[in-house]
Amino acid sequence: MWSLIATWKMAYDGVCQGAEMLKQGINVKDAVEKTVQIVEAEPSFTSVGFGGLPNEEGTIQLDGAFMDGATLRFGAVGAVENIASPVHLARLLSENEFNCQLVGKGAKKEAQRLGLQQIDLSTELSNSTYLKRKEEMNQELRSYNDHDTVGVVGLDQSGHLVAATSTSGLFMKKDGRVGDSPIIGSGFYADDEIGAAAATGVGEDIMKGCLSYEIVRLMKEGDSPQKAAEKAVFELDEKLKRRIGKAHSISVVCMNRFGEWGVGTNCPFAFVIADSNHEAKVYYAEPKNGNVFIREVQKEDRVD
Amino acid sequence: MWSLIATWKMAYDGVCQGAEMLKQGINVKDAVEKTVQIVEAEPSFTSVGFGGLPNEEGTIQLDGAFMDGATLRFGAVGAVENIASPVHLARLLSENEFNCQLVGKGAKKEAQRLGLQQIDLSTELSNSTYLKRKEEMNQELRSYNDHDTVGVVGLDQSGHLVAATSTSGLFMKKDGRVGDSPIIGSGFYADDEIGAAAATGVGEDIMKGCLSYEIVRLMKEGDSPQKAAEKAVFELDEKLKRRIGKAHSISVVCMNRFGEWGVGTNCPFAFVIADSNHEAKVYYAEPKNGNVFIREVQKEDRVD
Repeated sequence: MWSLIATWKMAYDGVCQGAEMLKQGINVKDAVEKTVQIVEAEPSFTSVGFGGLPNEEGTIQLDGAFMDGATLRFGAVGAVENIASPVHLARLLSENEFNCQLVGKGAKKEAQRLGLQQIDLSTELSNSTYLKRKEEMNQELRSYNDHDTVGVVGLDQSGHLVAATSTSGLFMKKDGRVGDSPIIGSGFYADDEIGAAAATGVGEDIMKGCLSYEIVRLMKEGDSPQKAAEKAVFELDEKLKRRIGKAHSISVVCMNRFGEWGVGTNCPFAFVIADSNHEAKVYYAEPKNGNVFIREVQKEDRVD
Repeated sequence: MWSLIATWKMAYDGVCQGAEMLKQGINVKDAVEKTVQIVEAEPSFTSVGFGGLPNEEGTIQLDGAFMDGATLRFGAVGAVENIASPVHLARLLSENEFNCQLVGKGAKKEAQRLGLQQIDLSTELSNSTYLKRKEEMNQELRSYNDHDTVGVVGLDQSGHLVAATSTSGLFMKKDGRVGDSPIIGSGFYADDEIGAAAATGVGEDIMKGCLSYEIVRLMKEGDSPQKAAEKAVFELDEKLKRRIGKAHSISVVCMNRFGEWGVGTNCPFAFVIADSNHEAKVYYAEPKNGNVFIREVQKEDRVD
């Protein structure tokens, strides 16, 4: 028995390869890292890794995290520049007793020390998208539309769970802005004895509810992954609307230690699933009347 | 009815002044910020603010956070240099809808933009302590002893709660290392409808349990602050020992929306309390046989 779930359609190729690894009995750390890295490396995915979207100064700063459900050890990097794979750096940091969470120039320096290659993360696409938006922002109010984190949760045949995330964060964010993706309990959480979760959406909202930790906790209390994910997302959505007047997009994927998965969302949201009984497939989730409706992705579904 | 609790004896002067403000009916945001700022400004407190202890490169990098229990809005800064009051910057950021969490040079730049003064945070004491430790570290294994965060939780006469933290983090940490203090749910959490908490100790351990969120959650389920704090700290301590073989020091202060307070710790720990019925006083907490014993500080208690 193994299982793998990831946020957004863009994770499809990664999930196929990660699933193949889990099928072969490779451990979940390697499989989840590889799944994320395939998304990070693809320049046409402008919200993650290479070719990610820059901050308001035109610099690409990446966030990422990796958590080992066996030991609760985690690594996290925030606002790191010139690193092709934040999830790889986060995984290396997760082996540290101290200094497992590094940001900015310190994170970059540590990557250099660890022998990671420094590269220019920008592409023609990321540059032109930036310039176009900069032009638009002179004309309209600032808005933050693009913020798609790849979040992956996996279970291997030995019963180990891993959660990992990677993102370039909010497009046109401020220099140094860090979202929920590298924040333990908010963007990700994993505990072999219970389950794991990873989030995507507007970090500033996700963090207010410590969403990933809350979902794992609900699974600990006996909720199914689907019930835990729905409950946590809808309660946070309701709370934010009541307390500050609105809630931005919030989505989460999760899995319990038996490989059963769940998805919570307050907006249209696509995700990818593969497990020992099913090939990788893209699904589409939509909230409606306090429930999440899930179906296979159809051609007419305009989701990423 | 108002109430104020803070980590470590060093918070005494700050608590006295914060308590005076709460007594006069001043709001908890101002009172908690002032409490933290008094600790930040004192150069003889080498774990917070001005005169804080440097990282391994000799640079002082500060972490801090501020959370408003009314709106769940929070601000957080990590590894920020040359800012006298990280809690003040965090409070300003907590008013943002986006970009409420900034790190490194981006945080410093935003502080400049907001008109905050840039200062040299080092003192003769912090410099000499650094040089002495650098010398020692050439001779022995690396150790991280000093990591005292000021964490403050307060309730004002209008029933609003705030949690805030400020620290220079682990002494001799790596450039860019961020601990639990600016991490929502781990170092701090506040919700007017339930309660609030703030932590101190080794961040890498505190974060593995999302400690502050967990304590607030236990209070939501009906636990008293004292029971919630003890339960969460001891469970995390036990879990860490079972899963990775050891647990470092972990302490927490918390309060519910009625102003009742609680303290959890797995090591000797001093804290300061003041409320509408009691003058500010320093207490000493010690874990023993699965309980926390609390008494007024005596001369023989060698705690900070």
